[in-house]
Amino acid sequence: MRKVALVGAGVAKFGVRQASYRDLIWEAGKACFDSVPAIRPRDVEGLVVGSVMPERTAFQSHISSMAAEALGIKPSALSARTEHMCASGTVGIRYAYAFIAAGLADLVMVLGVEKLNQPTGQEAILNMGTGVDREWEASFGLTAPPCFALAAQRHMAEYGTTEAQLAAVGVKNHNHAAKNPNAHFSKGATVEQVLGSRMISSPLRLFMCSPITDGAAAVILASEDRARGLTDAPVWIRGTGQALDGFTLSSLPENYARWPSLVRAAESAYRMAGITAREVEVAEVHDCFTIAEIIATEELGFCGKGEGGPFAAAGRSDHGGDVVVNPRGGLIGCGHPLGATGVAQAAEIFAQLRGEAGPRQVPRARIGLTHNNSGMGEHVVMIYGREAA
Amino acid sequence: MRKVALVGAGVAKFGVRQASYRDLIWEAGKACFDSVPAIRPRDVEGLVVGSVMPERTAFQSHISSMAAEALGIKPSALSARTEHMCASGTVGIRYAYAFIAAGLADLVMVLGVEKLNQPTGQEAILNMGTGVDREWEASFGLTAPPCFALAAQRHMAEYGTTEAQLAAVGVKNHNHAAKNPNAHFSKGATVEQVLGSRMISSPLRLFMCSPITDGAAAVILASEDRARGLTDAPVWIRGTGQALDGFTLSSLPENYARWPSLVRAAESAYRMAGITAREVEVAEVHDCFTIAEIIATEELGFCGKGEGGPFAAAGRSDHGGDVVVNPRGGLIGCGHPLGATGVAQAAEIFAQLRGEAGPRQVPRARIGLTHNNSGMGEHVVMIYGREAA
Repeated sequence: MRKVALVGAGVAKFGVRQASYRDLIWEAGKACFDSVPAIRPRDVEGLVVGSVMPERTAFQSHISSMAAEALGIKPSALSARTEHMCASGTVGIRYAYAFIAAGLADLVMVLGVEKLNQPTGQEAILNMGTGVDREWEASFGLTAPPCFALAAQRHMAEYGTTEAQLAAVGVKNHNHAAKNPNAHFSKGATVEQVLGSRMISSPLRLFMCSPITDGAAAVILASEDRARGLTDAPVWIRGTGQALDGFTLSSLPENYARWPSLVRAAESAYRMAGITAREVEVAEVHDCFTIAEIIATEELGFCGKGEGGPFAAAGRSDHGGDVVVNPRGGLIGCGHPLGATGVAQAAEIFAQLRGEAGPRQVPRARIGLTHNNSGMGEHVVMIYGREAA
Repeated sequence: MRKVALVGAGVAKFGVRQASYRDLIWEAGKACFDSVPAIRPRDVEGLVVGSVMPERTAFQSHISSMAAEALGIKPSALSARTEHMCASGTVGIRYAYAFIAAGLADLVMVLGVEKLNQPTGQEAILNMGTGVDREWEASFGLTAPPCFALAAQRHMAEYGTTEAQLAAVGVKNHNHAAKNPNAHFSKGATVEQVLGSRMISSPLRLFMCSPITDGAAAVILASEDRARGLTDAPVWIRGTGQALDGFTLSSLPENYARWPSLVRAAESAYRMAGITAREVEVAEVHDCFTIAEIIATEELGFCGKGEGGPFAAAGRSDHGGDVVVNPRGGLIGCGHPLGATGVAQAAEIFAQLRGEAGPRQVPRARIGLTHNNSGMGEHVVMIYGREAA
């Protein structure tokens, strides 16, 4: 299997954007090409686009071809869109990664994009329901917030996790986002603001939830030979893992505060990378809700099971702590434009491992991780390194 | 790069189905598992689902997870949906192929599914328009039938192709479908019926077009070691190629009767397989309209440029001819449930190369090809062989 590296990355401004799908694609694609001047669009052999619901939000399928044409790319090896709800971007990176690792391509762009805001907020929220089983759950109101609220309630009952600990993650990620010019939110937040924000699904309050965001991000993957010729600082894909416990909530193991498929996905990725959780210095973790970051830091092995609340509240997942989690602001601070999220996570790790993250920089970070899930029972983990192995 | 083979395949009944997305997934998944009793659902390490617009037609994203749960699969290596409009199924096969070739997985199911028929025909037709650029073409009526009609008109002007030759492809594929119990149409057709059917977009008449169809299909891919342990008759992936000229019609080379990206995709696939076009004995070609099969047989190298009309009319693409094109009935006779088409093409080649195609069998076929496009300027080609190399 060949080695594969990220050689370029760019992110569009996340937020409530007066921009079309094509506008967002242009913005992220241009930022990505600008990051690696040695690559012209016509050099890129393939394009994978992670996007969930352009059929609903832009009345448009066939997004990878639209994006290729918009960016001047003429795929000669691969072109496809990937969808896996909130993890659509990371499964897109894995498509390109497998192609290059197998020797089927050398230089591929992966772009994630979503335009979720609609003329009415109600339409936007309705659309988000397509990610949950329609026949058995979404139609009865069991969409994402109540699912994760159930996990939070269980975690509080089982491990004594507190509202203040749930709030600590919201404060951290809102404050991180304030240092990221591409984030949806820029004002930061205090614990009082988080705990005083309105209840969405008990115990999760507004500032503990990711918002409905438009955005796009892009990265370029290259084979080892090409990577070394294109940049002095490639960021290597060291490991990857994906695992599933179930789709519907009713199919998951009974204790929603434990996510065994994340443990398995992480184990696969760590084993492949030849590292342990302790070696990860910077991590982009899927904080669709604050409880998700708390449980994920446990299952990823950054702290013990049940210790995720105190771990966050003590600042161990912030700058100066054990591992910096979500320095770009995470889904809560940056927003969560579904297909774009996994790619934006990779773009942040790319910047961090190259020392180019400005005020968000984790000093001398050499190993980074991204975690992207598409429900409590489905997880994908990537590990990146400044060194190839 | 590791060798990869198909070890199982199954197809659901294509047609206007009183069945949900989940029903169609069950039907194709069960047929596929039944074809290879040595595999239980829990042995499968991954699932890729090709599907274009479940967001519109079933108000459901996240289809690969829904399908995994429905089929009892617990992905431990990969799970994703792929979309590339009409080629969504084949790009799904390529995702699984790359994963196995790279050594990232050993046993992966690829399932294609689409439920296109809606309570009103108008809604179904409207949905199909999402595959064409909405802002610049679809909104002005330039959907698939007029695009391919323009290609037909140009082919007639340039090479003297006749309506009778266009009809010959419709007759062949409708008659082939009559031998396929899973096809949408079962009655066959005469040249008088084809030429007497109503005009859709001049010169393309109803029986020269693929219908709006519901359906699903599944195949299982395995690494060499696993394949040899599971079946005595694996069908090997020998080559693959994908290329793009452009997405919008206005971006394509001026002569719509020439499809240079298909030539390039085929060249890549033939080179990788180490074969020439002459060695292909059975081919599933993307006949969304009869003109598409005529042009594709030229660009694939089955006949000379401009000779596709006479080639079909003389029976050279039928049983007993140079190469049997679309023995299962093609998109015209079987129907075209977008995401399912590419996977059903692979399932047919699997049956043909194993000598299991019953009344449709091409005697002693050892090399087969599938061609799947998502517009005149975007093509993907796969080559399969009874022998690994």
